[in-house]
Amino acid sequence: MTQLQPQSFVSNFSSQAEETDYFDYFYNEPGSEPGTLNIEPTARPSRIILIDYDEDDAIRKVDISPNALLPYLGKNSVSWMDVQGLGSEEVLREVGTIFDLHPLLLEDIVNVPQRPKLDEYKDKLMFIAHMVRRHDGVDGFVTEQVSFILGKNYLVTFQEEELEDCFDLVRERIRNNQGKVRQSKADYLAYLLLDSLIDGYFPILEHYEERIEVLEEKIISEPDRKIMQEIYSIRRELLALRRLLWPLRNVLNLMIRDDHDLLTQEVQIYFRDCYDHVIQILDILEAYRELASSLMDAYMSSVGNKMNEIMKFLTVFTAIFNPLTFIAGVYGMNFENMPELKWSWAYFACLGVMFSIASIMIFLFWKKGWFKTTYSLDEE
Amino acid sequence: MTQLQPQSFVSNFSSQAEETDYFDYFYNEPGSEPGTLNIEPTARPSRIILIDYDEDDAIRKVDISPNALLPYLGKNSVSWMDVQGLGSEEVLREVGTIFDLHPLLLEDIVNVPQRPKLDEYKDKLMFIAHMVRRHDGVDGFVTEQVSFILGKNYLVTFQEEELEDCFDLVRERIRNNQGKVRQSKADYLAYLLLDSLIDGYFPILEHYEERIEVLEEKIISEPDRKIMQEIYSIRRELLALRRLLWPLRNVLNLMIRDDHDLLTQEVQIYFRDCYDHVIQILDILEAYRELASSLMDAYMSSVGNKMNEIMKFLTVFTAIFNPLTFIAGVYGMNFENMPELKWSWAYFACLGVMFSIASIMIFLFWKKGWFKTTYSLDEE
Amino acid sequence: MTQLQPQSFVSNFSSQAEETDYFDYFYNEPGSEPGTLNIEPTARPSRIILIDYDEDDAIRKVDISPNALLPYLGKNSVSWMDVQGLGSEEVLREVGTIFDLHPLLLEDIVNVPQRPKLDEYKDKLMFIAHMVRRHDGVDGFVTEQVSFILGKNYLVTFQEEELEDCFDLVRERIRNNQGKVRQSKADYLAYLLLDSLIDGYFPILEHYEERIEVLEEKIISEPDRKIMQEIYSIRRELLALRRLLWPLRNVLNLMIRDDHDLLTQEVQIYFRDCYDHVIQILDILEAYRELASSLMDAYMSSVGNKMNEIMKFLTVFTAIFNPLTFIAGVYGMNFENMPELKWSWAYFACLGVMFSIASIMIFLFWKKGWFKTTYSLDEE
Amino acid sequence: MTQLQPQSFVSNFSSQAEETDYFDYFYNEPGSEPGTLNIEPTARPSRIILIDYDEDDAIRKVDISPNALLPYLGKNSVSWMDVQGLGSEEVLREVGTIFDLHPLLLEDIVNVPQRPKLDEYKDKLMFIAHMVRRHDGVDGFVTEQVSFILGKNYLVTFQEEELEDCFDLVRERIRNNQGKVRQSKADYLAYLLLDSLIDGYFPILEHYEERIEVLEEKIISEPDRKIMQEIYSIRRELLALRRLLWPLRNVLNLMIRDDHDLLTQEVQIYFRDCYDHVIQILDILEAYRELASSLMDAYMSSVGNKMNEIMKFLTVFTAIFNPLTFIAGVYGMNFENMPELKWSWAYFACLGVMFSIASIMIFLFWKKGWFKTTYSLDEE
Amino acid sequence: MTQLQPQSFVSNFSSQAEETDYFDYFYNEPGSEPGTLNIEPTARPSRIILIDYDEDDAIRKVDISPNALLPYLGKNSVSWMDVQGLGSEEVLREVGTIFDLHPLLLEDIVNVPQRPKLDEYKDKLMFIAHMVRRHDGVDGFVTEQVSFILGKNYLVTFQEEELEDCFDLVRERIRNNQGKVRQSKADYLAYLLLDSLIDGYFPILEHYEERIEVLEEKIISEPDRKIMQEIYSIRRELLALRRLLWPLRNVLNLMIRDDHDLLTQEVQIYFRDCYDHVIQILDILEAYRELASSLMDAYMSSVGNKMNEIMKFLTVFTAIFNPLTFIAGVYGMNFENMPELKWSWAYFACLGVMFSIASIMIFLFWKKGWFKTTYSLDEE
Ligand SMILES: [Mg+2]
Ligand SMILES: [Mg+2]
Ligand SMILES: [Mg+2]
Ligand SMILES: [Mg+2]
Ligand SMILES: [Mg+2]
Ligand SMILES: [Mg+2]
Ligand SMILES: [Mg+2]
Ligand SMILES: [Mg+2]
Ligand SMILES: [Mg+2]
Ligand SMILES: [Mg+2]
Ligand SMILES: [Mg+2]
Ligand SMILES: [Mg+2]
Ligand SMILES: [Mg+2]
Ligand SMILES: [Mg+2]
Ligand SMILES: [Mg+2]
Ligand SMILES: [Mg+2]
Ligand SMILES: [Mg+2]
Ligand SMILES: [Mg+2]
Ligand SMILES: [Mg+2]
Ligand SMILES: [Mg+2]
Ligand SMILES: [Mg+2]
Ligand SMILES: [Mg+2]
Ligand SMILES: [Mg+2]
Ligand SMILES: [Mg+2]
Ligand SMILES: [Mg+2]
Ligand SMILES: [Mg+2]
Ligand SMILES: [Mg+2]
Ligand SMILES: [Mg+2]
Ligand SMILES: [Mg+2]
Ligand SMILES: [Mg+2]
Ligand SMILES: [Mg+2]
Repeated sequence: MTQLQPQSFVSNFSSQAEETDYFDYFYNEPGSEPGTLNIEPTARPSRIILIDYDEDDAIRKVDISPNALLPYLGKNSVSWMDVQGLGSEEVLREVGTIFDLHPLLLEDIVNVPQRPKLDEYKDKLMFIAHMVRRHDGVDGFVTEQVSFILGKNYLVTFQEEELEDCFDLVRERIRNNQGKVRQSKADYLAYLLLDSLIDGYFPILEHYEERIEVLEEKIISEPDRKIMQEIYSIRRELLALRRLLWPLRNVLNLMIRDDHDLLTQEVQIYFRDCYDHVIQILDILEAYRELASSLMDAYMSSVGNKMNEIMKFLTVFTAIFNPLTFIAGVYGMNFENMPELKWSWAYFACLGVMFSIASIMIFLFWKKGWFKTTYSLDEE
Repeated sequence: MTQLQPQSFVSNFSSQAEETDYFDYFYNEPGSEPGTLNIEPTARPSRIILIDYDEDDAIRKVDISPNALLPYLGKNSVSWMDVQGLGSEEVLREVGTIFDLHPLLLEDIVNVPQRPKLDEYKDKLMFIAHMVRRHDGVDGFVTEQVSFILGKNYLVTFQEEELEDCFDLVRERIRNNQGKVRQSKADYLAYLLLDSLIDGYFPILEHYEERIEVLEEKIISEPDRKIMQEIYSIRRELLALRRLLWPLRNVLNLMIRDDHDLLTQEVQIYFRDCYDHVIQILDILEAYRELASSLMDAYMSSVGNKMNEIMKFLTVFTAIFNPLTFIAGVYGMNFENMPELKWSWAYFACLGVMFSIASIMIFLFWKKGWFKTTYSLDEE
Repeated sequence: MTQLQPQSFVSNFSSQAEETDYFDYFYNEPGSEPGTLNIEPTARPSRIILIDYDEDDAIRKVDISPNALLPYLGKNSVSWMDVQGLGSEEVLREVGTIFDLHPLLLEDIVNVPQRPKLDEYKDKLMFIAHMVRRHDGVDGFVTEQVSFILGKNYLVTFQEEELEDCFDLVRERIRNNQGKVRQSKADYLAYLLLDSLIDGYFPILEHYEERIEVLEEKIISEPDRKIMQEIYSIRRELLALRRLLWPLRNVLNLMIRDDHDLLTQEVQIYFRDCYDHVIQILDILEAYRELASSLMDAYMSSVGNKMNEIMKFLTVFTAIFNPLTFIAGVYGMNFENMPELKWSWAYFACLGVMFSIASIMIFLFWKKGWFKTTYSLDEE
Repeated sequence: MTQLQPQSFVSNFSSQAEETDYFDYFYNEPGSEPGTLNIEPTARPSRIILIDYDEDDAIRKVDISPNALLPYLGKNSVSWMDVQGLGSEEVLREVGTIFDLHPLLLEDIVNVPQRPKLDEYKDKLMFIAHMVRRHDGVDGFVTEQVSFILGKNYLVTFQEEELEDCFDLVRERIRNNQGKVRQSKADYLAYLLLDSLIDGYFPILEHYEERIEVLEEKIISEPDRKIMQEIYSIRRELLALRRLLWPLRNVLNLMIRDDHDLLTQEVQIYFRDCYDHVIQILDILEAYRELASSLMDAYMSSVGNKMNEIMKFLTVFTAIFNPLTFIAGVYGMNFENMPELKWSWAYFACLGVMFSIASIMIFLFWKKGWFKTTYSLDEE
Repeated sequence: MTQLQPQSFVSNFSSQAEETDYFDYFYNEPGSEPGTLNIEPTARPSRIILIDYDEDDAIRKVDISPNALLPYLGKNSVSWMDVQGLGSEEVLREVGTIFDLHPLLLEDIVNVPQRPKLDEYKDKLMFIAHMVRRHDGVDGFVTEQVSFILGKNYLVTFQEEELEDCFDLVRERIRNNQGKVRQSKADYLAYLLLDSLIDGYFPILEHYEERIEVLEEKIISEPDRKIMQEIYSIRRELLALRRLLWPLRNVLNLMIRDDHDLLTQEVQIYFRDCYDHVIQILDILEAYRELASSLMDAYMSSVGNKMNEIMKFLTVFTAIFNPLTFIAGVYGMNFENMPELKWSWAYFACLGVMFSIASIMIFLFWKKGWFKTTYSLDEE
């Protein structure tokens, strides 16, 4: 048996997250047989990584076949079977057979994404949650469904991809026998993984906090169309985040409220902590959603303010030059009898009157406060 | 007895869906006798298609008379009586008599559309749901009420039309003995049909997803009045969709919560899957509704932005030409003593001054950023 | 005993519904004695119409005095006492005494309008509902409170006016022994009347459906101020409708949920149908309210769009004529040395230049799409 | 013992209600001793008015000292101790001692205003409500906290001021032995007072109904800034009203739901009537709040409409005079070779052309409907 | 043992509250060991202040080490251990060991901020709340988490900083044996502290009341961009306040509803008072939030109104001078045959006509009410 090899834990980075479909959902062709598995052509082949441990020992086996899992189920040690990639129907069906999964349950695991949910069976507890991850440089986040099957001595997890997940620190603690994981049962492992998954939402929250702060700045200094788009995007993505977390809250509530054969009371206290975190994340999410909606209001009134500024500018020009041009027009008339035209100082007087009118106009506008542009507030 | 004939399953396409009444409802004349059946003049004559099957055999009888159904009710096999068309009062009343339907129940079946609902009787379970279908080419969807009467060995369904429905794949599985339908009872058949009906909502969701995506694009590039109309239509139709699904959710919740004589626990697990799907559809529907409402906000601020652009344009023209026209006016005055007029280079100096003023104006506006039209964002 | 006379059932039409107070409510002077009856000066004198029937016979007595009702209470037949008009305090008090009504109950019956409600007493069930009716030609609706006292063998109803109500078809069925009313008890009669009353809300719904459809049309073709007013009116009236129906829903829910001595289970099934209808009406009402609010959004953005159109128009004029007028101004200057003035073809060249500038301007605006007025969409 | 003297019941009017603090609340200095009484310097000295009655007799004692109340507590008659003014700490503490009030309870009574609430103790029921009153001439309302302590044979009420309250009609009925008050216990008295207090909200509702109606008129005829302020005020005050009534609803709900030693079932029926009234008031309040918010929408679109009117006006002037001024400019140019200038009829032709252009412009605008000002709708 | 020294109670003021993060939350690195304590570099070193008292005596010990607390736990007197500063991991872990705190509980205490919550353990009750404080001169507030561990004879509190808190008046009452604190148990002390903490929210409410009042004034007199920002800030901060109070309400609800070994019924009555206060604060908070949102509406319509004013100004200038300039242009034309030019009084007549046109225009605008600026309302 190979010992755990830390360097092989993490593999290559996902680069296929260009265009996230935040409101994705799965459905089979209407009328198709219940339990139909939908293997997408782009789905990664399924590989199984086994980590089996007890207080004394911990082994890790990569690319193990489903049938090779059987001996570990009988043992008293905790077996974590991590199925990565949902592309190999045969492998998935075999796993389903070994763990006696209901066809509809396997359907929910494979036909991703599904809403987070908890299903309880006689001898196992099944729940679905979603890992979130930032993509590098780009705004927003990507999600990946993780399905958990918690049995007496084992935990099966299903991930969409074999790429980096948020469980590496847990794997390391198992390998190095840190904390109490090696002294605990499969339910504690399930908690550790779910806790890591949930903690992964906090960096996403920070991402939105930053974007909202940037918007708060920009709306004051330079309201343009991009702001509207950005507010729309933020509202859209926060909405998508909430869709992932709201049902997860119910899942955790069921876990800590009810009596479950597979969860000891001691571990339920730990899940209560997960529940606290989900509540807190949802709380902040709602706050951000309200802020984004207040920002939209602020942006709208800011567009109206900008229009007022432009209008004032236009009005100032019109109000100053209209009277002057009119006077010039009067003395451009060709009446024969226009006495003023003959006075030698008339032209200069006329210029003087024009200058006075302009000055008075400018003074009046200045008094009205139209020149202190209320627009760029920071200069005041 | 005729064997099942696949080619006769589907018939001609509905082409009468030009103008959908999304908020249709039925009511009898106030004060009319309870149990009054409203046979609309355009309603299709009722025909009954019987499919009777057990593990060994499956027969199909088209255009069978109500009385000819009686022998099948006593048999142990599963009998699916599909009543298509609600136009023949006599046939419908006979079916009501044979299955001992309460007059108010028959009223709900015939006087379509009704809200989805579940009524439980001693020996039968009745529920109403609505099939949805896209019409070809046109936006939106059409609905058709399907009423289910689930008895011990039989399932009666009532459809408004004899046209294409979403049950053909189920019929095929019965005929070909695929899956476990032929090994199961009438409750499993009810599940299969309801599941097909519910899965039919997903393509409708996709339709709205596409329309929302188109709008998201358009609001950036070319905000015009059609957008407002389209947002309004989408909000209206999503509202109509929710009216169909929200009560259906309650129907399914009752089905999977309570203990029903006519639903085995095993089949209730299947209905739980239907419930999951309805929840998911409602979830996405709410998300789309929020997106549509955010889009309205975005569109409104976009109209304001466009106005700002137009105003800037107007102001630029006014601000450049008003001073120039004024200067031209001054030197068009007819005062006798205007020394400048006589200088030979004065005209050219005047043109030069005008050019300078125009240039300075343009430069100032350019500095203010008024020429980089923030409108067509894609070019930046 | 007089036989039922159909021709005397309906009387003259109400013509006093000019100005409906949609949010009317009743209150006695603060501090006044509980049970104080408020007889409005305009209230119609109270008359009692008795319809007494069993399987074999049905009689009708008009303008019967309260005391003459006593013999009918002892009989096994069903007695429907319909009190029309709330203007005769003495008559109402006598009725109160005969049926042993609590002073507060009588207060609720007489001091109209009250919220729909259900009060249960030892030997009777009291509920209040409101009849709605369109007034001819005018928009909106009028309401009339109907109070029901259901006892063992009798049903007392109180109406505000003796005018047309929605119960005539029920009266006719009693007279002609149609349906099962003559074979049933007083609770079935209560159902029949309440069902008629509720069905009377559907034509009102249709009225609002039409008004909303008209608005949907108009907002596209010709957004003017009347639209705003109409939307406001619709929102106001739908709000008033909901105030009548929401508590009625609770009344019916109590009727079908709980066990009542005076309602047989068989008749409760019928009331369940009433409940379905109220739910459906409320459902549509909410949909209409959301539509009206979406229409307000659409109208607002439509006002902004119209402003953009006007602004474009103004800008086109300004942008074309400002440069031209400036050029004309230049050559109207009186400098002595302006060589162009002497060229014989200069004037025509100048006109040519002006024409070119105008043409280029128009072309640019046309390219920008400012001439295809996005306003009247239907022509595109 | 003095007999009840009606003339001394009411005293002088409050004139200190200039500036109502609609969202007032009380708090002690953070960290101060629980039970600290806050006697505001402006608080009125406390006086106690005792009214003691049974079927046979009714006496009234003004300015009785707390200790003088003791003999009445032992008697079988009903004793209503009305404490008016919260300014005398000593008196209030003595009352607290006599009736054995918890320090926190006394705090709630004295440190006004508190939220309406119901506290149940072994031998007494305590509840808080708020009297509302219009001030003369001014918009809005003033409130005064009334606290009730209901014991076996007594009712203690605490009012903030000794001024007019809404209980005079009740006092008169006690004095004149009208109604059943003298035949009833202290719980019926509590009902009578609370009912009077609640009925006092209806005139306030009417006040807001009128203000909303005025706004509905004004928005059509003359939308100005005062409307915005008035809508804001109405929303603010209705919000304040709801804060008083919503918790009062809960108080009454507890009173009529639960079993209370101090409330007989017969009197609970009366409190049910109070509950009905509170529900009705809240109902109408919510309706008014929705109307006020719809009015805000209407006002906003009305501001936009007005801008369209102004813009049309400006555009009409610009579009008519720009071409004319341009033509005048052309023939004011000084080119030597301008043949038209020499034609003798040219000037008149030019004027004719100008007139035609103006006429055509005006005709086109008239066709476009820009002259029928959609603004003042009433004239159409 | 040192006697309590009042002068050492309060120390230096916090000056680090420049930029409050109103939506702060804590999270450990995803995947980190449960129970990981996050000691921020800026966190203050932890010091413990012990106050131990019974009816007879009260001592205070500053900077006591965790182990020195042990003797006090066995005693019958009440021991209040106040841990100030969360910067010393060792001290905190020792305290955790002494009081047998679950690692997750200690995590919640140290890794601030957490949502308010109540956790019940066999022999202790733990709850979290947040102190709020105004910073001097600046708008807004700062928060500090306070965690309470209530045991049989002791109360442990954890504060983030050693600076001024809101508990000094309680400390003084212990020292001076005022009120009933020295005669009571630890649960009463917990109440006193929580009550002080909650009362500290009222001055914050007043702060927002003032800011809203200022806005109400300003929107009428001078609507500028700063108003929009201020409304946004208020909405944001009220949202943050609600996040602190809403879960605190639940904490208190649990405290007063359920039966707790560590809370006597007598003290639960006191906590009920705290609950009342939290409800009242939340109530007012919601009212302020609605007011802030109404203010946003008012501000938006006010921006539109201001635009109307500017537009009117522009239109007046355009409408007066366009016709005049046109007339001047006409008589500036150079046609040879323009008879008027030769009339000696023509120029003066022309000026007269111009003056008349201007006067009529001004009169018409005055009639239309465009000169009474509806903007500065206070002058009217
Ligand atoms: Mg998709
Ligand atoms: Mg399916
Ligand atoms: Mg997928
Ligand atoms: Mg993965
Ligand atoms: Mg965590
Ligand atoms: Mg357990
Ligand atoms: Mg925690
Ligand atoms: Mg219809
Ligand atoms: Mg009916
Ligand atoms: Mg139909
Ligand atoms: Mg069909
Ligand atoms: Mg499905
Ligand atoms: Mg599923
Ligand atoms: Mg009224
Ligand atoms: Mg009353
Ligand atoms: Mg009335
Ligand atoms: Mg009537
Ligand atoms: Mg009906
Ligand atoms: Mg029905
Ligand atoms: Mg205040
Ligand atoms: Mg306090
Ligand atoms: Mg006060
Ligand atoms: Mg008073
Ligand atoms: Mg009342
Ligand atoms: Mg009543
Ligand atoms: Mg932060
Ligand atoms: Mg963690
Ligand atoms: Mg922190
Ligand atoms: Mg501190
Ligand atoms: Mg307090
Ligand atoms: Mg209190």
